[in-house]
Amino acid sequence: METKISVIGGGSWATALVKILTANIDQVCWYMRNEQAIEHIKATKHNPNYLSDVHLNINKLHLTNDINEAVAFSDYIVFSIPSAFLSDELEKLSEPLSNKNIFSAIKGIEPKSGLIVGEYFNKIHHVPYAQIGIIAGPCHAEEVALERLSYLTIACLDEEKARFMAEAMKRHYVKTKISDDVVGIEYAAMLKNIYALAAGIAHGLGYGDNFQSVLMSNAIREMRRYIKHIYKIKRNINNSAYLGDLLVTAYSLFSRNRMFGTMIGKGYTVKSTMAEMNMVAEGYYATKSAYLINKNQEKPSRTPILNAVYKVLYEGKRASIVFSELTGELD
Amino acid sequence: METKISVIGGGSWATALVKILTANIDQVCWYMRNEQAIEHIKATKHNPNYLSDVHLNINKLHLTNDINEAVAFSDYIVFSIPSAFLSDELEKLSEPLSNKNIFSAIKGIEPKSGLIVGEYFNKIHHVPYAQIGIIAGPCHAEEVALERLSYLTIACLDEEKARFMAEAMKRHYVKTKISDDVVGIEYAAMLKNIYALAAGIAHGLGYGDNFQSVLMSNAIREMRRYIKHIYKIKRNINNSAYLGDLLVTAYSLFSRNRMFGTMIGKGYTVKSTMAEMNMVAEGYYATKSAYLINKNQEKPSRTPILNAVYKVLYEGKRASIVFSELTGELD
Repeated sequence: METKISVIGGGSWATALVKILTANIDQVCWYMRNEQAIEHIKATKHNPNYLSDVHLNINKLHLTNDINEAVAFSDYIVFSIPSAFLSDELEKLSEPLSNKNIFSAIKGIEPKSGLIVGEYFNKIHHVPYAQIGIIAGPCHAEEVALERLSYLTIACLDEEKARFMAEAMKRHYVKTKISDDVVGIEYAAMLKNIYALAAGIAHGLGYGDNFQSVLMSNAIREMRRYIKHIYKIKRNINNSAYLGDLLVTAYSLFSRNRMFGTMIGKGYTVKSTMAEMNMVAEGYYATKSAYLINKNQEKPSRTPILNAVYKVLYEGKRASIVFSELTGELD
Repeated sequence: METKISVIGGGSWATALVKILTANIDQVCWYMRNEQAIEHIKATKHNPNYLSDVHLNINKLHLTNDINEAVAFSDYIVFSIPSAFLSDELEKLSEPLSNKNIFSAIKGIEPKSGLIVGEYFNKIHHVPYAQIGIIAGPCHAEEVALERLSYLTIACLDEEKARFMAEAMKRHYVKTKISDDVVGIEYAAMLKNIYALAAGIAHGLGYGDNFQSVLMSNAIREMRRYIKHIYKIKRNINNSAYLGDLLVTAYSLFSRNRMFGTMIGKGYTVKSTMAEMNMVAEGYYATKSAYLINKNQEKPSRTPILNAVYKVLYEGKRASIVFSELTGELD
């Protein structure tokens, strides 16, 4: 395909996206901060830090550590960096974003603004909603690296742009579908990290598989209520981009959010969990934002799981007590 | 509680039910075929064959290997034996069942009649529907043994009887709720075993977590269509008794149905899988019955997952080919 695409970010998911895109797109610009990593990729065709087994087709790759160069390079920009670093990266921008098509592969909330990423690009960078899209899972990057069959949902209000990106992401091991529920899918992707964190806390506290299944059954109903309240359109919450994404995250032992929760459930403090994991789980920030967004609604949704996680992470309440109370609110 | 209850069956789930019931009910009659097991329980207060760590309160237990004695003993009879053995057990009956309240903890289909268990009691043993109830999960017996928090749904058209059984099953580690969707919950309990089998086949074939989450997202939608077609009432398919039960079964590595599927996916024949496992997974019988029930509808539901499992188990088609075709029908 002739249209150029730029990918912003050097992590696992960005690397998986580049692997997929370079198979379909002739010119892909890849921005990452780490100059050594860029040199390593040029020399060895492998990302030294993430999915390092993946062979990268550098003939089609234009690597840069200048974000302005990457933005200028293409009309389609795919963002795949932790939401916590988004605003710092965008501060470097002199190139405008408002005439670009922005596809976000970021799951979560931009913590400074408290906005989901699509809203952030719209409100702060004046990108019209018809130019904003989402690349949604369920998808562990590690399985894309292994070419294990995965399904992605590409959402954009402009169907033609959704179709373009869906074509660009199609591989024999990646099936894609399109949707117009940008807002709903973004909130789902954010909330699922919180529920994975809750699953981790429950696991850390010693709850078993019977309880986990009840927790997930309640989580998907809570997610449905929450999203319906914010953006009411016809959607099937059991589609892959919502329920599937929740399941792959909450049932994965490798999910950072679940691990984070497990340590909290085992009695570690938030601070020591962060230090121990040496990274921050998206769900940690998401919990605060999602809680406040809901609280500030005229009539907040009933969100017992979100509230419980908030109490544990931000009000210093004991996980064992909070979750014991939570069990009475589930069914 | 003064009302007497009889439990039919000597397996894991029956043992868990007896553990729960003897805490609340003064007189519980427990029928099992195995006379040696009865003697062992009387002498040691433990079932030698299943959940053998569970201490049984034999002061409240009336043990018998005469099913007629067990049926005569109480007005409430809880059945917890594999559906494959149900008709053989009931052939021994001289006591009528039609004036009893029958609660089924059996998941599956009575293979000879092709009926779900509630219908079987109604059609074959003339028990009125208002006297037929269901004890549904999500619930691994092993976790009840460990007193890990579990949630049960008790369904009966007669709300008073549902409430009685829900009270009888309540413990500090068991929360119960009631429902009137006897038929829907029975079909869900049957279908979930088939989807767990499908999850096992996919696992055996080498599909990863991304695919499993998509498979489950499609399975719950397929389950909703299937049940809605057969018995259309307002239900939330994401409640614990439907989605929760599906998840605890399909994500459990200990589920017999999932294991059965895994061996099929790895290339074992149905026959050698049965021989190797030395037991039959409910999902094996359920697949045939569920497939035929759907096929015989005037307008069958779209059931790509059920159809795929049927092709593999009953038409001798290669799992790898059938599942490769299936991937194109999921989204």
